[in-house]
Amino acid sequence: MITVLVGGVGGAKLALGLSRVLCPGELTVLVNTADDLEWHGLHVSPDVDTILYTLAGIVNPESGWGIRGDTSVVLEGLDKYGLATWFHIGDQDLAVHIARTEWLHQGLRYTTVIERLAMALGVRSRVLPMSDQRVRTVVHTHDGDLAFQEYFVHRQTNIPVKGFSFEGIESATPTPEVLEALRGSEIILLGPSNPFVSIGPILALPGLRAALQQGPAPCVAVSPIVGGKALKGPAGRMLSQLGYASSSVAVAQLYADFLDGYVLDAADAALEPAVQALGIRTRITETVMQTLDDRERVARETVAFARTLGAGSVV
Amino acid sequence: MITVLVGGVGGAKLALGLSRVLCPGELTVLVNTADDLEWHGLHVSPDVDTILYTLAGIVNPESGWGIRGDTSVVLEGLDKYGLATWFHIGDQDLAVHIARTEWLHQGLRYTTVIERLAMALGVRSRVLPMSDQRVRTVVHTHDGDLAFQEYFVHRQTNIPVKGFSFEGIESATPTPEVLEALRGSEIILLGPSNPFVSIGPILALPGLRAALQQGPAPCVAVSPIVGGKALKGPAGRMLSQLGYASSSVAVAQLYADFLDGYVLDAADAALEPAVQALGIRTRITETVMQTLDDRERVARETVAFARTLGAGSVV
Repeated sequence: MITVLVGGVGGAKLALGLSRVLCPGELTVLVNTADDLEWHGLHVSPDVDTILYTLAGIVNPESGWGIRGDTSVVLEGLDKYGLATWFHIGDQDLAVHIARTEWLHQGLRYTTVIERLAMALGVRSRVLPMSDQRVRTVVHTHDGDLAFQEYFVHRQTNIPVKGFSFEGIESATPTPEVLEALRGSEIILLGPSNPFVSIGPILALPGLRAALQQGPAPCVAVSPIVGGKALKGPAGRMLSQLGYASSSVAVAQLYADFLDGYVLDAADAALEPAVQALGIRTRITETVMQTLDDRERVARETVAFARTLGAGSVV
Repeated sequence: MITVLVGGVGGAKLALGLSRVLCPGELTVLVNTADDLEWHGLHVSPDVDTILYTLAGIVNPESGWGIRGDTSVVLEGLDKYGLATWFHIGDQDLAVHIARTEWLHQGLRYTTVIERLAMALGVRSRVLPMSDQRVRTVVHTHDGDLAFQEYFVHRQTNIPVKGFSFEGIESATPTPEVLEALRGSEIILLGPSNPFVSIGPILALPGLRAALQQGPAPCVAVSPIVGGKALKGPAGRMLSQLGYASSSVAVAQLYADFLDGYVLDAADAALEPAVQALGIRTRITETVMQTLDDRERVARETVAFARTLGAGSVV
């Protein structure tokens, strides 16, 4: 069993690669839910859906989120009635949100809801929301506090951040399924996802970080920063705005208390000694995943690297 | 000012005719809301929407309900996730339900919500829901009690009825706008709508029937029964199942305590004396409204007939 912690698009690429190089059922994808939002009364879960759509092979390949070929009839209608439409929801996509909201309303656990959606979509890896409880990322900016999607989509991340908090995190818990997956995993991976707003909320769940620190499974992250920049999203800028170096090393530092291995891009090969100085083993490869072959190769190399770090391995 | 009480498709035809032969703003359409339903968390109001879409000129002309040329992407999605899809909601249609649910959730009165939708759709007549409170028709059948849409759409009315009740009716009230419209109307019309489940709930609202009985405006109904049958829907069968004659006269009897005039189809000319025996004046015309011209003609004739019944008129 292998568990990978992810947020949205970047993590989905690695998760897809892993799902293709591992045996069916061998992969558990542990997904951030702190960027969930209420959208006109419907529960929308952008990171979870990106993972589901990607693993189901129906994701829009241009954007990396949403469903390929989806239409926007409902959204255009909402615009006519003066409702906010800055958060884009396609018509096929909307059916997922209606089903999710209905099932939650019936009292199902969020874990069960996602399991149902995954089954209906033909996803064969296990997709686990990080928690059944409501956690919401709040972005502290120089213009005040913003809900995550307000910052990310509506304001297009064009506003410097001062920090983050995760509303509800104190009373949220990782689900039994999450703790079991972490305990039962041979290796634990962190996708090339934003360390603050994708991986951050997962690690902030009470007990989760300690489980990574204390568990026997080696933890290996794939760097989300290549050549000082995030491939997608605001991770690079966030590092700078928060006073870190916008560098792959800064991310390794954020995980240093539990990380055993770190996969860096070839462009960052010069940073290897700095990461190793943190007590973290390194592997250099081409981490940019443009093709399906890239996703499979990075997945295969990351797993192989992680296996060399296992408790019983001689490195 | 003229007010017309209506349910769905049949009433919508007369309302459209009225809206075209009267001056803009002269018509108020008072609509049944007891067939509303909760559809996967959304508030759906079939009769109100049929009226809005018809008056906005966007109704599907084949069915008489829904939006012309609408797609069903979301519904097909819901089917994939195993949600009930027997109640058909198109994609453009769905935007209306999302907006309505959102506004109700914000605490707006139902009257205000419908006013907003009517404005956005370019409807120039006033469309008033009968009440801001929740009223739901329950159909008592030999197979037990059914929610109205369960009976009407899911079971396709293929089950004999024993009676009806209107859940919530005791604590519901007509809105101030409804009472004002009735008080301020020169004439009050009843559309060729089902007397039990379309007009029935409106009349059952506390105080409403008394307002019709006591108000000075003449009340005129257009018969929903032609040649012993309803043109659409189960009104004819309901009359038989409940022990009435399936006849235009039976409907006039149901309204006899407040009705001043009754428009019968030429096919039912022989029934004129029986209606007149109830103390109700009659007018014979072709009431079947197939074309837009038909709708305008029936509207024009009905209004002209009603005006002859006014308090100061010499007949």
